Amino acid sequence: MQHYDVIIIGGGPAGFQAALSARKSNPKVSIALIRKEKKALIPCGIPYVLHSLKSVDDDILPDEPLQKHKIDIIIGEVSRREDHTLQLSDKRQISFKKLVLATGSRPVFPSIPGVEKEGVFFVKKEYDYLIKLQGAARSSKNILVIGGGYIGVEIADELLRAGKHVTLIEMLPSLLATTMDPEFSSDLHAELENHGAKIILGCKVIQFTGKDQFDGADLDNGDHIEADMAILSVGYKPNLEIAVTFGLETEKNYGIIVDEYLRTSDPDILAAGDCALHKNSITGKASRVMLASTAMAQGRLVGSNLFRISFVKNFQGTLGSFATKVGNFSFGVSGLTELEAKELGIHYFTGEHDSVDRHPGKLPGATKIHIKLLFARYSHVLLGAQIRGGDSVGELVNMISVMIQKRMTDMEIDTIQIGTHPLLTSSPIAYPVINATSNAIEKWFHKTTEEL
Amino acid sequence: MQHYDVIIIGGGPAGFQAALSARKSNPKVSIALIRKEKKALIPCGIPYVLHSLKSVDDDILPDEPLQKHKIDIIIGEVSRREDHTLQLSDKRQISFKKLVLATGSRPVFPSIPGVEKEGVFFVKKEYDYLIKLQGAARSSKNILVIGGGYIGVEIADELLRAGKHVTLIEMLPSLLATTMDPEFSSDLHAELENHGAKIILGCKVIQFTGKDQFDGADLDNGDHIEADMAILSVGYKPNLEIAVTFGLETEKNYGIIVDEYLRTSDPDILAAGDCALHKNSITGKASRVMLASTAMAQGRLVGSNLFRISFVKNFQGTLGSFATKVGNFSFGVSGLTELEAKELGIHYFTGEHDSVDRHPGKLPGATKIHIKLLFARYSHVLLGAQIRGGDSVGELVNMISVMIQKRMTDMEIDTIQIGTHPLLTSSPIAYPVINATSNAIEKWFHKTTEEL
Repeated sequence: MQHYDVIIIGGGPAGFQAALSARKSNPKVSIALIRKEKKALIPCGIPYVLHSLKSVDDDILPDEPLQKHKIDIIIGEVSRREDHTLQLSDKRQISFKKLVLATGSRPVFPSIPGVEKEGVFFVKKEYDYLIKLQGAARSSKNILVIGGGYIGVEIADELLRAGKHVTLIEMLPSLLATTMDPEFSSDLHAELENHGAKIILGCKVIQFTGKDQFDGADLDNGDHIEADMAILSVGYKPNLEIAVTFGLETEKNYGIIVDEYLRTSDPDILAAGDCALHKNSITGKASRVMLASTAMAQGRLVGSNLFRISFVKNFQGTLGSFATKVGNFSFGVSGLTELEAKELGIHYFTGEHDSVDRHPGKLPGATKIHIKLLFARYSHVLLGAQIRGGDSVGELVNMISVMIQKRMTDMEIDTIQIGTHPLLTSSPIAYPVINATSNAIEKWFHKTTEEL
Repeated sequence: MQHYDVIIIGGGPAGFQAALSARKSNPKVSIALIRKEKKALIPCGIPYVLHSLKSVDDDILPDEPLQKHKIDIIIGEVSRREDHTLQLSDKRQISFKKLVLATGSRPVFPSIPGVEKEGVFFVKKEYDYLIKLQGAARSSKNILVIGGGYIGVEIADELLRAGKHVTLIEMLPSLLATTMDPEFSSDLHAELENHGAKIILGCKVIQFTGKDQFDGADLDNGDHIEADMAILSVGYKPNLEIAVTFGLETEKNYGIIVDEYLRTSDPDILAAGDCALHKNSITGKASRVMLASTAMAQGRLVGSNLFRISFVKNFQGTLGSFATKVGNFSFGVSGLTELEAKELGIHYFTGEHDSVDRHPGKLPGATKIHIKLLFARYSHVLLGAQIRGGDSVGELVNMISVMIQKRMTDMEIDTIQIGTHPLLTSSPIAYPVINATSNAIEKWFHKTTEEL
C-alpha cells in the first residue's frame, strides 16, 4: 500500500494550488494529487476554447509546477475511505496523514424535456467532452445559449466573434442579474446586441425539439427558436459525493462545512474551492459564488493549516471579484452591488464617475469608463464597486478588491496616490476610483443623512 | 479692483485640481485661476504630440470643468503682491483671502555650447513652442534625444513609432537610472534597441555643432553624432520666482517649503505640485520626483485646508508611482527600488515572479510579466515594486501603490482575494503580485536573517 503524508483529491485550481501550498509550507513531506482527468482544465478559459484558442489543449493546467515541486500525480477515482486509507475504483489503496478535498463543481442539469438529445451541450470541465463541444460549435451556424450568467455571456461573445448567429436566453429579467446592477448589465446587454446577439430575458425553455438530434427549443412565452445546437450554462453545484461518502458534514447545494482554516468536521481532512461551503465576507451569508480566484485564495491557505494552524492564514469569506469582457467593453465587479445592499438593508451611499482610460482621451485605443462605488453610511467603508471600461478594468477591479479587503474609507481613498500614464490609464484628474470617491464624499459632506 | 476669496496661480494639473477641490470644499466662495497660457497642457501627454496625437490641441487640459464649477479663468502673469493684493504685469490688481501657488516646473537648460542653435529643442509646457517642436520633429529624419529619463525615453519611443532614426544619449550608466533597477531598465533599453534606437550611455554632449542651424553634437567620448534636430530632456526644476518675490521660504531646486497641509510660511498661501517641496514617503528625504499624479494628489488636498484644516487631508510624502510604455512592453514602478534600499541601508528582502498577463497564455495578446517586490525585513511591510509586462501594468502598479500606502505586509498580501479573467489578467495560479509575495515569504520562512 502506498502512503503519502498529504493527499489532495481534485486537480482543478483549488487542488492544484492546495498541493503547491502544501509543499511550500512543508518542504519535506510526501504529497500526491489524485484526479480523475488525464488532463486538468483551466476552468475560466473554457469559453475561449470555442474560438480564441485553437484547441482544448491550449486550455490545460500544466503538470510541470506539480512535478517540479515533487507532487505525485495519480490519475484515478476515489471510491471510499477507511480511516486514513483511500480506496480507488481500480482497487488501489493509498493511505494519508492529511487529506484535502478539492472536488470542485459540475453543471446543473435542468430537467427540461429533450435535454438528452444530441446537440444539447453543457459546459463540463472535461477534456474529451470539450473537444466534442468545440467541434459541434465550429460546425454550427445558429447556436442557442441558455443561461445569462458569466459563462453564458462569455460563450455568446465568443460565438459572435466566430461569426455565429447567437440567441441567448435568460430566465431572470437581466443578464448577470445576481452580480451586477441594471445600469451595468444593460450596457453589457447592449454590447452583445450590437455585435449581433438576440437576447431573450425573463423566459424559460420548456422543451428541446428534434428527433434524436436537437433542432430547436420551445419557450414558455410560446416562441420557438430554431438552432443547430444548444449550450446550457444555468449554474453549477458542488461535487459533494466523496465528502458525503466520507461522512463529512455538508450543506446541500452549498458545500462541505469548513471552519476559517478550511478544516472539515474530520480533523485530518480539509476542503477548498467550489466544494467547500464559503460565506460572503461582507454579508456573512452562504455564498453561491464559484470563482477560480476564490478557490485559489483558499488553496493558498490550506498548506499552512495542514499540520499546525498558521494564525492569519484563514479564509475571511468570499469577496467576489469578477471581471469579464464582452465586445469592446470590459466589466468588473467587486464586493456588494447596490441591489444586494438594498435587499440586505445595508445603509449605503454611492459615488459615480465617467472618464476615459487614456489621457488625453484622443489617444488611439481610448475607451470610456463608468464606475460606481458603494460606501457604508456611518463607517464610510468601501463595500463594493462596478466598472465598465477597457481592458484595464481587469486590474482596476483588483485595486478595488484590495481597498475593500483593507476596509478603506472614502476619506482614505480620497488622499491616495496613484500612478498614471497617457497610454495606460485615465488622467490623474479623471482617475475613476478617486473621482467616484470624491463624488461620494461631496454628497455626505454637504447633505444630511436624511437627504442622502 | 477685483476680489476673489481664493486665487490659484498656475493652470497645470496641480492648479487645476486645487481649484476644483477648493470649490468642492467651499461651495459658496469666489474662486479664480490665473495662468499665463491661453491653453493649458496635459504635461504627461506631451511626448505623444510627436506622433500618436494629431495636434497639440489634442493635449489640452479642458477649461469646461473649471467653468462648470464657477471658477473664473484669468489669463495673465502675476508680477508681485502687496499684502493680499496681486499685481499682474498688465497692471490689473486682484485681491484674495487665500492664495494657492501651483507654478509648476520648467526644463533645466544645460550650459552646453551651441544649445541656443535653431533645431535644439526642450520639452517646454508651452502651446506655441510645442507646435514648433511637433513641426520640426515631423519634418526631421534623424533625431538626437538627450536625457534617458521617462520623458526622453517616451520621446524616443514615439519617434521610433513615427519611423524616425533616433539616437538617445544618457549621462548615467543606465536609462531611468534613478527610478528603476538595472534588470528592468535593461529590458526597456533592449526594447528600444529592438525598435531601432541607438542608445549611448555614460556619455555627455560637449557641444552642439552647425552654423546657426543645429546639425549634430560632439560627445565627451570623442564621437560626433549627426542629426537634423535635438530634443533635450535632462530634468526639470521648480518655478520659484513668484514664491521668492512673495517672500516665502523656499529651498533652491526643491521647492516652496510647505507643511503637511501644504501651507507655506505665509498662513494665507498654500502651494501644491512641482513647485512645492515634497518628501519621499518612505525615506523622508526631499524628493526630486515630479509627477502629475503626485501634483494632483496635493491639489485634491488643498481645497480642504484653505480656510480650516481638515485633519486626515494631509500629504504624507511622495510615494512615486510610475508607469510607462516602450515598444511592446509596459513598465511600472512604485515605492523604493532595490538600488535605493541598498543606498539607504534599508534591511529588505525580495520576491520575484514570472508570469503571463492572460490565461491560458496562448490567448492572443498575451504578454510576459516579470515582477519584483521589496519587503522590509522585520516588519514585513511592502516597500516597493517593479513590473514589466503588457498594458495592464498601468493599473497593476496602482494596486501595489494602495498596498504600499496601507503598509500591507507580505502575509496580508498572501491571503488577499483578487479577480481574474482569461482575456484581462494573469491566471489566479500565476497572479504576479501574490506569487512574488509568496516567493518572498518562502525565503524567510525557511531561512534565517543571516541566510537571506
